[in-house]
Amino acid sequence: MLSKLLMTGAAGGVGAALRPLLAEFATSVVLSDVTEITDLAAHESFQLCDLGDSGAVAALFDGGVDGVIHLGGVSVEKTFDLILNANLVGAYNLFEAARHHGQPRIIFASSNHTVGYYRRDEQLDNTVLPKPDSLYGVSKVFGESLASMYFNKFGQECLSVRIGSCFPKPADPRMLATWLAVEDLADLCACAFAAPRLGHTIVYGASDNAESWWDNRNADFLGWRPKHSSAKWRAEVLASASRQDARDPAVIYQGGGFVAAGHPSDKS
Amino acid sequence: MLSKLLMTGAAGGVGAALRPLLAEFATSVVLSDVTEITDLAAHESFQLCDLGDSGAVAALFDGGVDGVIHLGGVSVEKTFDLILNANLVGAYNLFEAARHHGQPRIIFASSNHTVGYYRRDEQLDNTVLPKPDSLYGVSKVFGESLASMYFNKFGQECLSVRIGSCFPKPADPRMLATWLAVEDLADLCACAFAAPRLGHTIVYGASDNAESWWDNRNADFLGWRPKHSSAKWRAEVLASASRQDARDPAVIYQGGGFVAAGHPSDKS
Amino acid sequence: MLSKLLMTGAAGGVGAALRPLLAEFATSVVLSDVTEITDLAAHESFQLCDLGDSGAVAALFDGGVDGVIHLGGVSVEKTFDLILNANLVGAYNLFEAARHHGQPRIIFASSNHTVGYYRRDEQLDNTVLPKPDSLYGVSKVFGESLASMYFNKFGQECLSVRIGSCFPKPADPRMLATWLAVEDLADLCACAFAAPRLGHTIVYGASDNAESWWDNRNADFLGWRPKHSSAKWRAEVLASASRQDARDPAVIYQGGGFVAAGHPSDKS
Amino acid sequence: MLSKLLMTGAAGGVGAALRPLLAEFATSVVLSDVTEITDLAAHESFQLCDLGDSGAVAALFDGGVDGVIHLGGVSVEKTFDLILNANLVGAYNLFEAARHHGQPRIIFASSNHTVGYYRRDEQLDNTVLPKPDSLYGVSKVFGESLASMYFNKFGQECLSVRIGSCFPKPADPRMLATWLAVEDLADLCACAFAAPRLGHTIVYGASDNAESWWDNRNADFLGWRPKHSSAKWRAEVLASASRQDARDPAVIYQGGGFVAAGHPSDKS
Amino acid sequence: MLSKLLMTGAAGGVGAALRPLLAEFATSVVLSDVTEITDLAAHESFQLCDLGDSGAVAALFDGGVDGVIHLGGVSVEKTFDLILNANLVGAYNLFEAARHHGQPRIIFASSNHTVGYYRRDEQLDNTVLPKPDSLYGVSKVFGESLASMYFNKFGQECLSVRIGSCFPKPADPRMLATWLAVEDLADLCACAFAAPRLGHTIVYGASDNAESWWDNRNADFLGWRPKHSSAKWRAEVLASASRQDARDPAVIYQGGGFVAAGHPSDKS
Amino acid sequence: MLSKLLMTGAAGGVGAALRPLLAEFATSVVLSDVTEITDLAAHESFQLCDLGDSGAVAALFDGGVDGVIHLGGVSVEKTFDLILNANLVGAYNLFEAARHHGQPRIIFASSNHTVGYYRRDEQLDNTVLPKPDSLYGVSKVFGESLASMYFNKFGQECLSVRIGSCFPKPADPRMLATWLAVEDLADLCACAFAAPRLGHTIVYGASDNAESWWDNRNADFLGWRPKHSSAKWRAEVLASASRQDARDPAVIYQGGGFVAAGHPSDKS
Repeated sequence: MLSKLLMTGAAGGVGAALRPLLAEFATSVVLSDVTEITDLAAHESFQLCDLGDSGAVAALFDGGVDGVIHLGGVSVEKTFDLILNANLVGAYNLFEAARHHGQPRIIFASSNHTVGYYRRDEQLDNTVLPKPDSLYGVSKVFGESLASMYFNKFGQECLSVRIGSCFPKPADPRMLATWLAVEDLADLCACAFAAPRLGHTIVYGASDNAESWWDNRNADFLGWRPKHSSAKWRAEVLASASRQDARDPAVIYQGGGFVAAGHPSDKS
Repeated sequence: MLSKLLMTGAAGGVGAALRPLLAEFATSVVLSDVTEITDLAAHESFQLCDLGDSGAVAALFDGGVDGVIHLGGVSVEKTFDLILNANLVGAYNLFEAARHHGQPRIIFASSNHTVGYYRRDEQLDNTVLPKPDSLYGVSKVFGESLASMYFNKFGQECLSVRIGSCFPKPADPRMLATWLAVEDLADLCACAFAAPRLGHTIVYGASDNAESWWDNRNADFLGWRPKHSSAKWRAEVLASASRQDARDPAVIYQGGGFVAAGHPSDKS
Repeated sequence: MLSKLLMTGAAGGVGAALRPLLAEFATSVVLSDVTEITDLAAHESFQLCDLGDSGAVAALFDGGVDGVIHLGGVSVEKTFDLILNANLVGAYNLFEAARHHGQPRIIFASSNHTVGYYRRDEQLDNTVLPKPDSLYGVSKVFGESLASMYFNKFGQECLSVRIGSCFPKPADPRMLATWLAVEDLADLCACAFAAPRLGHTIVYGASDNAESWWDNRNADFLGWRPKHSSAKWRAEVLASASRQDARDPAVIYQGGGFVAAGHPSDKS
Repeated sequence: MLSKLLMTGAAGGVGAALRPLLAEFATSVVLSDVTEITDLAAHESFQLCDLGDSGAVAALFDGGVDGVIHLGGVSVEKTFDLILNANLVGAYNLFEAARHHGQPRIIFASSNHTVGYYRRDEQLDNTVLPKPDSLYGVSKVFGESLASMYFNKFGQECLSVRIGSCFPKPADPRMLATWLAVEDLADLCACAFAAPRLGHTIVYGASDNAESWWDNRNADFLGWRPKHSSAKWRAEVLASASRQDARDPAVIYQGGGFVAAGHPSDKS
Repeated sequence: MLSKLLMTGAAGGVGAALRPLLAEFATSVVLSDVTEITDLAAHESFQLCDLGDSGAVAALFDGGVDGVIHLGGVSVEKTFDLILNANLVGAYNLFEAARHHGQPRIIFASSNHTVGYYRRDEQLDNTVLPKPDSLYGVSKVFGESLASMYFNKFGQECLSVRIGSCFPKPADPRMLATWLAVEDLADLCACAFAAPRLGHTIVYGASDNAESWWDNRNADFLGWRPKHSSAKWRAEVLASASRQDARDPAVIYQGGGFVAAGHPSDKS
Repeated sequence: MLSKLLMTGAAGGVGAALRPLLAEFATSVVLSDVTEITDLAAHESFQLCDLGDSGAVAALFDGGVDGVIHLGGVSVEKTFDLILNANLVGAYNLFEAARHHGQPRIIFASSNHTVGYYRRDEQLDNTVLPKPDSLYGVSKVFGESLASMYFNKFGQECLSVRIGSCFPKPADPRMLATWLAVEDLADLCACAFAAPRLGHTIVYGASDNAESWWDNRNADFLGWRPKHSSAKWRAEVLASASRQDARDPAVIYQGGGFVAAGHPSDKS
């Protein structure tokens, strides 16, 4: 049980879904985002913070926190300047702040887009070379590498979760493989905070879906076993899906639509 | 859901068992074999065909089919001339006909005898070099290689199923590992027809048996999870089995009796 | 079903727990230990034996046995002379006796301490190079190597079980990963005696725990599926555990306390 | 030193180049082809043979041979009926004849086109799953599989050489990687005939070229070390080559032009 | 032969050493750096450029270049703001400029510090997960990931060279393994520009040293074979070296001194 | 350069051959054996020692040694009691003595017979699971495991050399693969003593022979490159060799004659 948990990016979709589940393992929760959150529960407080502002990030740790869930930053493809501030500078600011404030464990929201250019018929474990599919994906490789170095050099522990698709339910055929129930994500966070040793571990964030591209065996020491599955929406998803072209890169590669998208700075 | 499914080898054991299950995913079914089938259901039709006859094979696709289950051909060790006609020429005829008729997906009944000379204490995934145990097994390696080339060069998609033992129930200790419930096979076919992309994929056709030599993880993207197991017949099978000699090649190697059988042209 | 099973080390903790379960697959059981056992069931008999005494070990096979569970020997870190007699000479004596008495299959109680210097975030299968964590662990590597040679050269079959923690329930956080329910161990023995071929197989002896460092896929041919899990004691274990230091070798490495212990001959 | 060596396909390019080098390890040489050879040396004899004719193939072994170099058959992409006769039926006829005539070792001219759909930046050893690039390549997979089965079941030893480009000198950029000096091929044959045990071994037939896609380490037990290299023609080849398009499948994949060629039965 | 080659970071040590060798494969060379270069040869020109200035970087490509050697940026551990500008923003600016100017091939000076936290007794190929040892190393992982994405998505080809130690001669025991003769680096660049297809390839930049931690086999398709070795300085280096402590992280890990260095922002 | 080197087993074949070469890297050399050596050079001294006598072994380190070459013990198949004393107790005594005397690096003469039951067409690196072929081979697995534990737990560094055949020249076809020139062994010892860090490293002791079963890449960090080869005796060896039976276990497996030999205690 944590005394005080910090969660960045708390106003986003994953953050909003996770909030009600955090009370399971944290007595109080500091929420942070660039957007204000007003519907606070009794155990929650809010602190506005632009991740690109190192002072503001350090202030999030005032009074001490003993766990961090770092969802903050850009979570889709954007122009480089936006990614630079929130995901590159922002990640650096967060790890530096943690290092200077007692090294609480960090759950880092990485992404499947770090490996989006692997094919769907390739099964990936957590030792594969990244093949990002977007500037966004590249920024998450940066975050994971930073986490790796901060652990090896400074002992700062971190779980990098390559989140698939954390939505209320799978919305398209690709999500039958990538869907992550928020309850499974909460369990994963709990396992990571409870583990005798976390080190820097990379884990794929997907529920126990029948369709699967990812192999988490090297993280089995954490004891995480997802309990949910996309199976109950399978028929519904397939029925409403438009026909998939087997020659479409968005169908061939794991990254899906991110693979097919052009450069964010190009005129459409 | 397919409009019209073609199933070759429909008069054989696996074909007969599969027929009642095909209605789940096909509106109409064309059955074909060298032996006539007369007990046709309303959604079934029959077309006689020797797979060695390219014209007859092409005629199976008349009017268009949008899926093929290719069980046809010799399914045990036979002399080379029989295998040549049905399994070598036959496979070529089938892939050529499919290529010229809109490239419907093919489920190709390959066999565990493509890898029969691996030991039972070796765990095989779908990337291992074939080690066939018979002329029959060699002919199935030919079929898989043809399928691989037809996909890479022409885009013809195919699932090569290395079928274990598709019988009503396991009949001997070896089948505790190799048994494939026909319902699981039907589910696999449905997954393959429904998948956004199939490419050329090799999968081992066995149910969720406790004894296992095969690892299908590279085909997990299909979403197939067999639901049946040989476990309920385990005690019965072991009780009635004669003593196994641990030094017998038929016990050491996966191919079982096929390994121990001599050349089909040799006088017994 | 075995006619007569020999179990060495029957007076130890694992032996005592296994005894009531052996009747499932053995008609009569010869128990042996250096400590006398007096509470014998009708199907049990007892024979005193120091494993370092080759004549006494040979005498255990008098009248013939058709299966051996070899738990005897030192099971924790001890000085070299004790290990030498019971685990080195003792293992040799046992394999020699078996070789001369019809080669009944042997279940050899090896240990996770053969690989104690792998990290907990490393997933081990049964082909990894041993990295023992103690003189005790070295002696178990010796036993496994002896078993490997006796099978390859003489055909003596053996299952080397790298037992995790076979206790009534997990007693600390490490055992959440290493715990082996004695019922699962009994099932494993039954599978090994029933398998058509055993060869020399190494298997990790742990129940179906969520926390896991070990991958038994290469032994899947045995058909063993553990049914128990440490999960039901998880909350209790974590609540009563003292804080784990993520930098402590006993927490980093699989061997736990064995890694941290000094040399048994050093003065404390 | 062999007493009598049989070489099929002796009238082809590789056969003609090899002939003068065979005297190093064979006292007499039987040459065979569908085309007559008239310029026979003293130690050579000629026997006309269509490989599709089992009687004619058997006759090649009359009087006994103690080694076979099987270059015969179609060596480029052709229509299926031609490949069927020479490469499928022909290979079967040859292995059957050898099996019935004392099982002389066979050097089988397989081809890099068995793996033509791997990319050039993939390094292949001899355990990879075949990915043929043509009907011709498929026929060579058949031949290798047949050889594998004939060794495992009947003890017929064979070296399957996945020949790259055996020409007087490299003619284009691709051949800088695939070139095989005929002297290196002759050395390889000599190693295979001299080895204490050959089994069925697959080896890539390329000289010691700086550009390389293939790893022969698993065949290092043969003691073959190619002595030639494409390096001395590198500047010349690159100077005269037309510009390579990095997006051209013929440049991406190992099979080169075979990958780009359509189906041999299609009208051009 | 390139018409116009752009080399950034030309005033640094590696740049200065490479300059005289570029004439082998480039008719004219544009040198760039933040420090002016005045001793220009006839085929050289100079253009001042801060890599963090996207307009200035784009201007380097004015008039077209058909090859880029990108040595620019910070090459040792520095504070994050310096690395941010030169190595993160700088790399992005360079790849964007190349993408908009005809996609000339890029040789990207990455670093062995992308994998500095692997041990020296681990042999690395180019598919391992990065384990950077410094903010500098993290920035090079970013650059490689960016290059990977620019190739997969936009077709921009790049060679990422994980340079070891490119100095006139090895200066300490570690460099016996990491030394890269500048002539070997020049040959590598020439191979990369001449290859039919480069894609995005990672290669370790070390000469043919006896001590070696790196395996370039997956880049063998380039045809690069380093000709130099650290061996001739071995005795001299070992004689003058201070005693190495086998327990020192700087001796255990590949990154050497970078591993031992603290955070660049910490007060010493 | 070592001040004082201890070499056990100095009266044996390898020891006698190594002696003249040790002066390259050791100022004085203490020779030890159960057989007295009288032809001492000026820098050599002799000390009689039964390795089974812990006091005698400890005495070898009197006055301090800064390097050990441990060739002592039984080097062929013998009865268990002989192996027990010299190779099991002896190895323990030596590692204990080294641990108590400043932990000089140990070169441990292990043997290829630790892996004798791998086939010759299998390529082994230093991470494979041992498969010993004899009681002798099992004792060498024990020694390597002891060395592994002494390094991981106590920091005692050691090189375990799986010596092939260290004779003046190869004497039979198997030795074409296993031959180790004594000069190459001396170089290897020198590399191991000079390396900045040795840890516990396993290396196969064979010269640069064309025939090869072993892959030392994971020991490349040592900088050892053997300079000799069995090639110059190849023709002579093959000419005088009797015919090899490809089905003989002694020809199939790496262990050669050790594989074929029965149990040393069996009556012949």
